[in-house]
Amino acid sequence: MQRLGPWSREAWTVLALHLLRSSRSPNTGGLFFFAEARMKTQLELNKEKSSFVIKTPKGTRDLSPQQMAIREKILNAVINCFKCHGAKGIDTPVFELKEILTEKYGEESRLIYELKDQGGELLALRYDLTVPFARYLAMNKIKKMKRYHVGKVWRRESPSIIQGRYREFCQCDFDIAGQFDPMIPDAECLKIIHEILSTLQLGDFLIKVNDRRVVDGMFAVCGVPDNKFRFICASVDKLGKMSWKDVRQEMTGKIGLTPDVADQIGDYIQQCGGVSLVEQLLQDPKLSQNKQALEGLKDLKLLFEYLTLFGIAEKISFDLSLARGLDYYTGVIYEAVLLQSPTQQGEEALGVGSVAAGGRYDGLVGMFDPKGRKVPCVGLSIGVERIFSIVEQRMEATKKIQTTETQVLVATAQKNFLRERMKLIAELWDAGIRAEMLYKKNPSFLTQLHYCEETGIPLVAIIGEQELKDGVIKLRSVASRKEVDIKREDIVTEIQRRMSES
Amino acid sequence: MQRLGPWSREAWTVLALHLLRSSRSPNTGGLFFFAEARMKTQLELNKEKSSFVIKTPKGTRDLSPQQMAIREKILNAVINCFKCHGAKGIDTPVFELKEILTEKYGEESRLIYELKDQGGELLALRYDLTVPFARYLAMNKIKKMKRYHVGKVWRRESPSIIQGRYREFCQCDFDIAGQFDPMIPDAECLKIIHEILSTLQLGDFLIKVNDRRVVDGMFAVCGVPDNKFRFICASVDKLGKMSWKDVRQEMTGKIGLTPDVADQIGDYIQQCGGVSLVEQLLQDPKLSQNKQALEGLKDLKLLFEYLTLFGIAEKISFDLSLARGLDYYTGVIYEAVLLQSPTQQGEEALGVGSVAAGGRYDGLVGMFDPKGRKVPCVGLSIGVERIFSIVEQRMEATKKIQTTETQVLVATAQKNFLRERMKLIAELWDAGIRAEMLYKKNPSFLTQLHYCEETGIPLVAIIGEQELKDGVIKLRSVASRKEVDIKREDIVTEIQRRMSES
Repeated sequence: MQRLGPWSREAWTVLALHLLRSSRSPNTGGLFFFAEARMKTQLELNKEKSSFVIKTPKGTRDLSPQQMAIREKILNAVINCFKCHGAKGIDTPVFELKEILTEKYGEESRLIYELKDQGGELLALRYDLTVPFARYLAMNKIKKMKRYHVGKVWRRESPSIIQGRYREFCQCDFDIAGQFDPMIPDAECLKIIHEILSTLQLGDFLIKVNDRRVVDGMFAVCGVPDNKFRFICASVDKLGKMSWKDVRQEMTGKIGLTPDVADQIGDYIQQCGGVSLVEQLLQDPKLSQNKQALEGLKDLKLLFEYLTLFGIAEKISFDLSLARGLDYYTGVIYEAVLLQSPTQQGEEALGVGSVAAGGRYDGLVGMFDPKGRKVPCVGLSIGVERIFSIVEQRMEATKKIQTTETQVLVATAQKNFLRERMKLIAELWDAGIRAEMLYKKNPSFLTQLHYCEETGIPLVAIIGEQELKDGVIKLRSVASRKEVDIKREDIVTEIQRRMSES
Repeated sequence: MQRLGPWSREAWTVLALHLLRSSRSPNTGGLFFFAEARMKTQLELNKEKSSFVIKTPKGTRDLSPQQMAIREKILNAVINCFKCHGAKGIDTPVFELKEILTEKYGEESRLIYELKDQGGELLALRYDLTVPFARYLAMNKIKKMKRYHVGKVWRRESPSIIQGRYREFCQCDFDIAGQFDPMIPDAECLKIIHEILSTLQLGDFLIKVNDRRVVDGMFAVCGVPDNKFRFICASVDKLGKMSWKDVRQEMTGKIGLTPDVADQIGDYIQQCGGVSLVEQLLQDPKLSQNKQALEGLKDLKLLFEYLTLFGIAEKISFDLSLARGLDYYTGVIYEAVLLQSPTQQGEEALGVGSVAAGGRYDGLVGMFDPKGRKVPCVGLSIGVERIFSIVEQRMEATKKIQTTETQVLVATAQKNFLRERMKLIAELWDAGIRAEMLYKKNPSFLTQLHYCEETGIPLVAIIGEQELKDGVIKLRSVASRKEVDIKREDIVTEIQRRMSES
């Protein structure tokens, strides 16, 4: 009871007053005000008790210069590929009106970070880049657009689910919006995934493909009741992480399918293959009778034709167990997985997992349009966080990561040469040369050379009494230790020449 | 009263129950639970009443492809300059533990966006990149680092204050942490501001410089009471936006200085100049008797010497009216302003304003260290949002902004050439060429040419029956309309050659 002491005396009086006020007036803000005031008291108490821990919020982390250097390389490769396909960049705020995000993510909605109501609009951090894109299209009445967007998204995953996943993470999305001839943009999305995964050399991969209409059609012909589609969908998605036996158990247990229905689903979802499986299912006596499934299968056949033209069909697997949980998909869906865990050379096992995914969502933009006008969309998201981890582990194992791009250190072997170093480095900076100097009046020559070796600076521009008299700069290669006198007026050109050669 | 109707019946009962529970048990969570539940009801009511408006949150905006193209150019220039000076990149989460941000921003703390308490830690969106950097240094026990950080920050500015400013905006920070010889890193920060503003060609600019110790010393010798330093500091900062008369009015009125003290301050803060003013004040009978002010003035003298060596002293003005509101500054402070509003050529007046600022903050890292160990820091922040606006207006006025980097459109003048187009474009993509095609089976040739003109694609690779027979691709220059047949096996090389020439 002691913890209650400080407020039970005064606060109850306040409460009583507020209760009286709010019962008299339609302005019921008083209660919230009270609750908030009370919360603050509680907070202050906590603060006094617990010592102040310096950390990043749960599920988030800082990125070190090493990690940033790796990220920059990977993001550049991804963005370059998006640009290769003619995409334009856009950006949206990190938070949206809360209403924009509700009813877009099904079960996962509870993972959305909400902002505190500080008076004004109710806001939430974005959960992906797809919904903000759809909102952008609807708001600006854009009917056709090929865009990419690289940015952070936030999901309040519970710690048990996290397992190396973060609550703040980066997404790289590419989407094509507009009414076009079937499967042409869809095929391009798969080509892009293929290009990116090939460029990044992550090892062998496979892109699983299915169609939401085939999934739904399959459920229908197997006799799954309409109101159980979603749950079964989520259950099917677990195949691969769980055995069919366990998935079946979930279907017949918690979800309440009859064993017969579950087994029918099992017969379908354990199949995967190429275009021949599509053709086979087009002849399937049950599935071919379902209009939705038939449309999906026909489109998949066309998709495979285009993928063959793009030269990537052998990496694509039509996989009936791919269901993708998000509500908004309406057509083709896909997910790329690495085929083997990169555990060679002392790398930590990261597990085989999805590194890219996406699909067609023809209804989402219409949800934001006051008249419900649809803009068909298809897109993909690169799972860069997982890719970062893989590349990070590889690079740590094999070589030192350079975190700066400095080309030359301006140094001296003598005392009282700070002013000369400053004049020289300003010349280099003004010529666009990446140069550093130590922030000491009289640093030792050895310290300066060590600095170059530590940080990977390849050249040292040395100035001293003799050099000043002769009107030269001594240029030293850190690797070869060779030193050459260069005329002061030629030093910029000489450094530029050496850098372009290396 | 009607709005209260739906909850006054049931909810009061719930409240009563919770009150009973919380008075009996130390777990007082019930009240908050109630308040939250009540808030939801309110929300639902609001939702039903108001029609759903599709917009970005107040004070935020999307960035269009045009804006993104401009941003990319400016950010690249800024980051390139930071890298030129040997800075490493880091990243931090967009939110921090709320405690990390409290008591760092003085009066402005009320502008911090807080996240909703969804169970767990109390979080807030970062307000700048400086405090997260200091937290990063303390948390990782880093004593020396030169880093840059480009990222968004959030401030809940009230709409009347906003005037074209946004609640979400981008900052570009460069900071040098570590114990070094005086004024060497400080001078480099000013050199960087000078380089960036020169590179971006924003027109003439001036960098105002002062020292927090001179400001405080000046207040002391003028007889400002200690507890009024902060308010007077904020008041002084308004000089330039307000006349001295109005500033004086604020000092003697609201803040309650005597007219004599205000006039003494006025005599100082209306002075600005170069190193000669520093020397003059070093002889000032009052100011030179104040230890703090004397230290500040001596450092400013040294700073000017270094700025002369860097060749930038003529753009620097020692300005006694520069005070900078943030709590954490401890030494030299600076702010760059554009000298004329860019109103030529139909540009909208943006007003003369700060485009970069920064200073020394030697105490901030120590605030996060359990033993209070200090890491001296000096840094700068580029006001990129203002720079974006200026460049945007110029570019809109003068030329079309290209938002994609596509080099070639794969086209056809005949029907039924989709498959051939797809094969060709895959070849180009695989060679790293930026290529697009229209997502139609049979687009008209004119539509394809128009698309090139609209989006600025310079080349068209045309395939048709004749080309297929001859084993060639027709390469057309959109600008000159000249067409040449290129052997199919040479098309990649030819496009690459043309692109490297342009």
